[in-house]
Amino acid sequence: MTDARVKFTLDEQDIPTHWVNLMADLPGDAPPPLHPGTKEPAGPDDLAPLFPMALILQEVSPEPEIEIPEPVRDVYKLWRPTPLYRARRLERELDTPAHIYYKYEGGSPPGSHKPNTAVAQAYENAAAGIRKLTTETGAGQWGSALAFACQLFGLECEVWMVGSSYDQKPYRRSMMETWGATVHRSPSDVTEGGRAQAQHPTGSLGIAISEAVEVAAQSPDTNYSLGSVLNHVLLHQTVIGQEALAQMAMAGEEPDVVVACVGGGSNFGGLTFPFLRRVIRGDAKTRFVAAEPAACPTLTRGVYAYDFGDTVGLTPLMPMYTLGHGFVPPPVHAGGLRYHGDSPLVCGLVKGGLVEPRAYRQNETFAAAVQFARTEGLIPAPEPAHAIRAVIEEAEAAREAGEERVILFGLCGHGHFDLSAYDAYLAGQLEDPEFSEDDLAAALDALPEAPALA
Amino acid sequence: MTDARVKFTLDEQDIPTHWVNLMADLPGDAPPPLHPGTKEPAGPDDLAPLFPMALILQEVSPEPEIEIPEPVRDVYKLWRPTPLYRARRLERELDTPAHIYYKYEGGSPPGSHKPNTAVAQAYENAAAGIRKLTTETGAGQWGSALAFACQLFGLECEVWMVGSSYDQKPYRRSMMETWGATVHRSPSDVTEGGRAQAQHPTGSLGIAISEAVEVAAQSPDTNYSLGSVLNHVLLHQTVIGQEALAQMAMAGEEPDVVVACVGGGSNFGGLTFPFLRRVIRGDAKTRFVAAEPAACPTLTRGVYAYDFGDTVGLTPLMPMYTLGHGFVPPPVHAGGLRYHGDSPLVCGLVKGGLVEPRAYRQNETFAAAVQFARTEGLIPAPEPAHAIRAVIEEAEAAREAGEERVILFGLCGHGHFDLSAYDAYLAGQLEDPEFSEDDLAAALDALPEAPALA
Repeated sequence: MTDARVKFTLDEQDIPTHWVNLMADLPGDAPPPLHPGTKEPAGPDDLAPLFPMALILQEVSPEPEIEIPEPVRDVYKLWRPTPLYRARRLERELDTPAHIYYKYEGGSPPGSHKPNTAVAQAYENAAAGIRKLTTETGAGQWGSALAFACQLFGLECEVWMVGSSYDQKPYRRSMMETWGATVHRSPSDVTEGGRAQAQHPTGSLGIAISEAVEVAAQSPDTNYSLGSVLNHVLLHQTVIGQEALAQMAMAGEEPDVVVACVGGGSNFGGLTFPFLRRVIRGDAKTRFVAAEPAACPTLTRGVYAYDFGDTVGLTPLMPMYTLGHGFVPPPVHAGGLRYHGDSPLVCGLVKGGLVEPRAYRQNETFAAAVQFARTEGLIPAPEPAHAIRAVIEEAEAAREAGEERVILFGLCGHGHFDLSAYDAYLAGQLEDPEFSEDDLAAALDALPEAPALA
Repeated sequence: MTDARVKFTLDEQDIPTHWVNLMADLPGDAPPPLHPGTKEPAGPDDLAPLFPMALILQEVSPEPEIEIPEPVRDVYKLWRPTPLYRARRLERELDTPAHIYYKYEGGSPPGSHKPNTAVAQAYENAAAGIRKLTTETGAGQWGSALAFACQLFGLECEVWMVGSSYDQKPYRRSMMETWGATVHRSPSDVTEGGRAQAQHPTGSLGIAISEAVEVAAQSPDTNYSLGSVLNHVLLHQTVIGQEALAQMAMAGEEPDVVVACVGGGSNFGGLTFPFLRRVIRGDAKTRFVAAEPAACPTLTRGVYAYDFGDTVGLTPLMPMYTLGHGFVPPPVHAGGLRYHGDSPLVCGLVKGGLVEPRAYRQNETFAAAVQFARTEGLIPAPEPAHAIRAVIEEAEAAREAGEERVILFGLCGHGHFDLSAYDAYLAGQLEDPEFSEDDLAAALDALPEAPALA
C-alpha cells in the first residue's frame, strides 16, 4: 500500500541536529550590509546593540552546518518533525498527472513555521542574559511565535503589530497575550518612529520594525528580534527543508519544482535551502518558484539595490530587491508578505537565476486556498495561498504537457485567524488592490545613497 | 534518550482498522431508548427517518469490534494517527512526580476529535444516497467537522449553531462556510422549533438539535447527524483510545487514571472505552475521571432518568443523567459541554461506579488552560480545559502522596476560536455562572412520564 500513502511521518529523533548554512555554498563574496550612517560594511559590532553575539556569529558564519543547541531541539519536540503530505485529493480535483506534496508547518502552537527561529533566538538571548525582546509582526504569526518562545525561556516580549492586521485579527493579539506578551498597534504613540508615521494608519512591516528597533536600542537588557530577512533567521528555518528531504526520500520521489511564498524570505529559505544546496553542488536538478503578492511585488517588480530594512532608516542597508523603504503596501490579508524588501540571500538567488519569482493577485490566491481547503481539508493562511496558486499553475502545466511532474510546496501556516478574509472572499467582497507604479516611483526616489549592486 | 521523549508518533498504517464497541462488554441489557410518543422501546425502524441503516445497525450492534470502511480510513489519513505527548514542562511547573500524557486531537482540519465520527457518518449517508445532512453545533467544533466531512463526500450540510457560540465565535461560521456549509443562528426563524424558543436568545444544544431534526424529518433525501451522545458516535471516536493505548505502550507506561471532559460524551468515550474494556475484562486497573462544567453539571448534579435528547421533545427518550430537557445552561464558553443530558453509555458507567464525574467552574478551568498554554505551548479549547483542571488536581494529589502517578488525558481540541474568552479571562472579566437549583427544579418538573430507571 506504499503507493496510497498520504502522510509521511518522521519520529522525534529525526529532528535535524544541524541547521544548513547556504552562505557556505554561494560563489564569491556576497555584498555586505552597510552601516546606515557611514555606508561602510557593517560588522558584528554594529549589530551588537540589537542582537546577542551568538546570533551575530551565525549571521556571518562561513560554516556549512551549524549545530542546533540541545535546549532548542528540546522545544522543537513540541511540534517537530512536521508532517509531509501528498495532496492526492487536490491532484484528483485538478485532474493532473503531477504529484503534489506539501510540508505542513501549521501544527506548531503558534500555527506557522515561525517558532523554528523564535525558539532559537529566545534561547540565545536568554543565554546572553537579556531580559526582554521587542519585535514587529505583520499577520501576527511571527509575534505569536516570539511570544510563545519568550514564555518558554522566561523572557518578556513586546510586539508592534501592523495596524491593518491588528484590526483584521484581534485574536492573534489575544494569543500573544495568552503567552504573556505586550502588544501595541503600529504605528503606535509609544515610539518616535511610530508617532512620525501616524499618516499611515494601516501601518506596514517597515514601520513596525522601526518602532521595535527604536525601543530595543534604548536599553542594554532589551534586544530586538527579527522574524525573517536576516541570514540567521533563514538558517534556523532549514529544519523544514531537511525534514522534507528525508520525507521525499520516504515517498521515493525527487521534486522537479519546489514552491514557497516569500515575504521576508524565511519560509522560502527554510524549505528550499537544503534542496538548493544539492542543486548548487550539482547533485540535483530542481526548479524553485517564489510566490509573492502582486500588491507588493518585491522580487518581480522591485529594483536590486541597497536599502534600509525598515521605514525610518535605523537598520543597516541591505543588498536586496526593494520597492523602496518608503513603500507602504496596500492592506492585503497576507500581512506576512507586506514587506518592501526581502532576504538578501533569497534576492541573490533570484538575481543569479536559481529562483523564479511570480506574483499573484489577492482574489486568485483565495480561490486557490478555498480549492485546497475543500479537497485537502486544511485551511491555509493567506501567505501560503500564494504558493498554492503557483502549484496549481504548475499542476495544470503538467497536465497540458502530459508530464508526471513532482511538485513540493510549503504550507507554512493555517488560516484560523484569517477567516474574516475568507468570509469577504466567499461573499465576493474581497478587495484586489493593484500595484501602483506612482507609489513605487516615489518610494524609489527616496532610496538611500549607496554603492550600486552588480 | 528514550526517557526524554516528549512525542509518541504512530505511522499512517497504524490507524486502527476497527472501532471498539463497548456495548459488547457491559453486563446485562442496557435500558433501551423509548419512542417519544408510545414510550415503547424504540427499534431500528424508529430511527430510519433520521439515520441511514448502516449507522442504525452500528447503534445497536452487539459485536465487540466493527470494521472501519476503507474510504473512512482513507480520510482519517489527513490527520491521523494523532500524536501523544508527555507534558514534561507542565510536570516541572507543577513540581509533581506524576507523569502526565495527553492525546492531542486538535491537529485535524476542523481542530478537534469531531471529524472522527463526522467522516464516518458522511460516508454512510452518501453511500445510502442521501443528499443533505442537518445538524446542530455548540462551540462550532462539531458543525465544522460535519461541514468538512460533507465536502469530502459531496453532501450538502446545513448547521444550526447555538446563539451564544454564534455570537462569540464568528470565525467558526466562516470556517463552515469555507467548507461549503450553510449556517443558521439558533434559535432561528426557519423552523417551528426555533420560533417557539425565541425567548431563549442565547440558545442551547437542545434547541439546536430540535431545529436540525425537524428539517431532516421533513425530507426523504435529508438526514440528521448527531455529534455526540449516541452509541455509534462514541464508537467512531474509539480510534482515539486505541491509538493512545499503542502510544502509552511505546512510552512503556500504564495509566493510573484517564481523564476527559464530557459534554455529550463522545470525546470521553472515544479516549476511555478501549481502556475501559481492559478494566471490565480484568486486564487492568485504571481510574476514569469525567470533567464537566459546574454551570451544566449533568453527571454530578443531574438525575438518572428517561429524558428527551432535545428541548422540544422530538427525539427518543434516552436513559441518562439529565438536568431536564428544558434546562438552558448559562452561556459558558465551553459551548460543547452545554448539554442537559449525556451519552447513555457514559451515564451507565457513572451509575455503575466505573467513572468518577467532577465539575469545575469556568474561571478555574481557564486558569488551568493558561497554565497549560504557557508550559506546553498549545492553547486548549475551553472544553478540554476542564480535563486539564482535573489533571492538575490529580498531579497535585500525586505530589502530596509522593506517588509517581501516571495520568493520561484527552486534549480534544485547540482554542484558536476561543481567544475572546481567553481575552476576557486575562482581563479578569470572565463570568463564572453558578448552577441554579431553581432552574433545575423547574426543568426536572417537566421530565416526561416514563418507566423509572434502576
